[in-house]
Amino acid sequence: MSNPSILILPGDGIGPEVMSQVERIIEWFGDKRGLKFDVETDLVGGAAYDNHGTPLADETMARALEVDAVLLGAVGGPKYDDLDFSVKPERGLLRLRKEMDLFSNLRPAQCFDALADFSSLKKDVVAGLDIMIVRELTSGVYFGEPRGIHKEGNERVGINTQRYTESEIARVARSAFELARKRNNKVCSMEKANVMESGILWRDVVTEIHQAEYPDVELSHMYADNGAMQLVRAPKQFDVIVTDNLFGDVLSDCAAMLTGSLGMLPSASLGAPDANGRPKALYEPVHGSAPDITGQGKANPIACILSFAMALRYSFDQSDEATRLEKAVEKVLADGVRTADLMGPEGGSPVSTTEMGDVILEAL
Amino acid sequence: MSNPSILILPGDGIGPEVMSQVERIIEWFGDKRGLKFDVETDLVGGAAYDNHGTPLADETMARALEVDAVLLGAVGGPKYDDLDFSVKPERGLLRLRKEMDLFSNLRPAQCFDALADFSSLKKDVVAGLDIMIVRELTSGVYFGEPRGIHKEGNERVGINTQRYTESEIARVARSAFELARKRNNKVCSMEKANVMESGILWRDVVTEIHQAEYPDVELSHMYADNGAMQLVRAPKQFDVIVTDNLFGDVLSDCAAMLTGSLGMLPSASLGAPDANGRPKALYEPVHGSAPDITGQGKANPIACILSFAMALRYSFDQSDEATRLEKAVEKVLADGVRTADLMGPEGGSPVSTTEMGDVILEAL
Ligand SMILES: CC(C)[C@H](C(=O)O)[C@@H](O)C(=O)O
Ligand SMILES: CC(C)[C@H](C(=O)O)[C@@H](O)C(=O)O
Repeated sequence: MSNPSILILPGDGIGPEVMSQVERIIEWFGDKRGLKFDVETDLVGGAAYDNHGTPLADETMARALEVDAVLLGAVGGPKYDDLDFSVKPERGLLRLRKEMDLFSNLRPAQCFDALADFSSLKKDVVAGLDIMIVRELTSGVYFGEPRGIHKEGNERVGINTQRYTESEIARVARSAFELARKRNNKVCSMEKANVMESGILWRDVVTEIHQAEYPDVELSHMYADNGAMQLVRAPKQFDVIVTDNLFGDVLSDCAAMLTGSLGMLPSASLGAPDANGRPKALYEPVHGSAPDITGQGKANPIACILSFAMALRYSFDQSDEATRLEKAVEKVLADGVRTADLMGPEGGSPVSTTEMGDVILEAL
Repeated sequence: MSNPSILILPGDGIGPEVMSQVERIIEWFGDKRGLKFDVETDLVGGAAYDNHGTPLADETMARALEVDAVLLGAVGGPKYDDLDFSVKPERGLLRLRKEMDLFSNLRPAQCFDALADFSSLKKDVVAGLDIMIVRELTSGVYFGEPRGIHKEGNERVGINTQRYTESEIARVARSAFELARKRNNKVCSMEKANVMESGILWRDVVTEIHQAEYPDVELSHMYADNGAMQLVRAPKQFDVIVTDNLFGDVLSDCAAMLTGSLGMLPSASLGAPDANGRPKALYEPVHGSAPDITGQGKANPIACILSFAMALRYSFDQSDEATRLEKAVEKVLADGVRTADLMGPEGGSPVSTTEMGDVILEAL
């Protein structure tokens, strides 16, 4: 039997730096735990544009559809700001999400005990925080047609379309309810049903799926504006939050920042399970390409490493190994090892990206 | 010459309770400062639906277009949750915004010194916070066509349209730049130009207006998801934020909650100035109808009172009197007078809605 396959797309900015630590960890699992992976590496985003004139080559797209999991670093950077919309680095990522049909984006917002002081929020508001945001990722205003800029009379008009079908809502709702059952059994669904018909449909379908298939899970609904407020006011009231692509983009970033340490947060984007029960999947850190610190060896590789832990859990059915890796990360944090982004006002001497990789490997 | 006219629409929930304190303050300005207003009162939201079967009667709409300013309390409540979309309480408010053409929604997020402890954020992150969010209010996904829920094959599809014209963006951008000039001369514009063409047009038009008419103001651009993060991380970096209707809804609520005291925050919704330089205008507290405390005399009337202060400033050209009222509010807070929503964990005895009105009148 062949090894499970991983396509690594380091991308732009600090992407390659943080990903190189993940590659060491993948090797460690092969050597020490007998978990061998077939790893290949390719380009995405600005790096792909520089080489192929497109943020994602067709061959890369094809491989992404064949492998068992894709790991992505980050895309984008000021160098590409003036590129045409159709070839911007982001389009590479959006094409992967769409063609792999990764409709369920899992964004944990978790506050690490050792880092609770980093939050701009009071410690008691965020200590122990553990929310899972499930964001719909392949539809809504990101992909709806018609879209574009056209002329009407002598002025320009910009249009995008928010569009959701019943089945698109149903499948992401199911994925939220399934996750809730493994957590604290609570789902809060967020939309603007008071002003948007697509929000009414969202609320109706989530309610129907709940009643028919998950009556044991506690379900509530909240308008997205109130959701933003409640995340700031008392985030620990939430367990799983399910919401659409655009609200999910904004609310998950808001939730991520509550933890105070963006360099720590992984994400998983999952499709429907195949015949073997394995979903198409892409894993990436929540942080971006951080052009300001690129190439300085300062980047925190933990978000990217924890994204690989999510891959172990959701793609390779290796929950125990995922937990092993997560525990190793917790240990080095508890030991006080810090990259530059995790330095408090009291200072101290930060470790480099590679040194953080070293100590995590040691802890393993 | 006749007195300036005000239409009061107390609305639902705690709306009538908080508005009754504003009515006393309006009287005080007439008696003591020679500022007489012709005040009339009417129904909006659920209250209007109960009486007329519509959340805003045509006669009320007509009067709103005639008077010099509208003061609104709050709309909505669980009683109306199952009403058809077209007659929900919110539709009354949205009709006022649209037909009065109130394109510029000013939402100050200000942290009162005496209340900085109430925020869920650390005191140094929010003390002295003073942001003005300018939200476009009459276009975007709230009003774009096509919209609705229809059948395709055997499933339902929900659609809304995000649509912005050049002139719609230009006028709200101007209003943000004008405000910035009277404040700290900085505007940050937020959209998702990396994924939405309407966001590209937004960014382009804001940039054009800036270069042509307001080169003296400092302008920056931020993706809305990063905006949500930065609001949580370091809100004091902002002066004026300008954004569209939907992002503005979510981001302004996020910003409001940073202050920790929603019961304090007013808003103004302004149209274009008429021949006399007076804009059509509607003033309302940021908080909602708070059905959970309705009728108990517990509601904090300050947000509604400060909304009247904004009316003095923006509709009646009475900046000094507005400041007088704002100072009176600050004084009672500094004196430690608190409604129930402003009680800390250490407790104390809260004053009622009317008592808060009393002390503010005394302070005046
Ligand atoms: C890079 C960008 C296209 C992307 C998005 O808007 O979805 C990012 O913000 C994210 O949340 O993954
Ligand atoms: C009540 C509702 C229609 C409204 C909105 O979504 O605009 C409210 O949330 C607001 O922000 O004023």
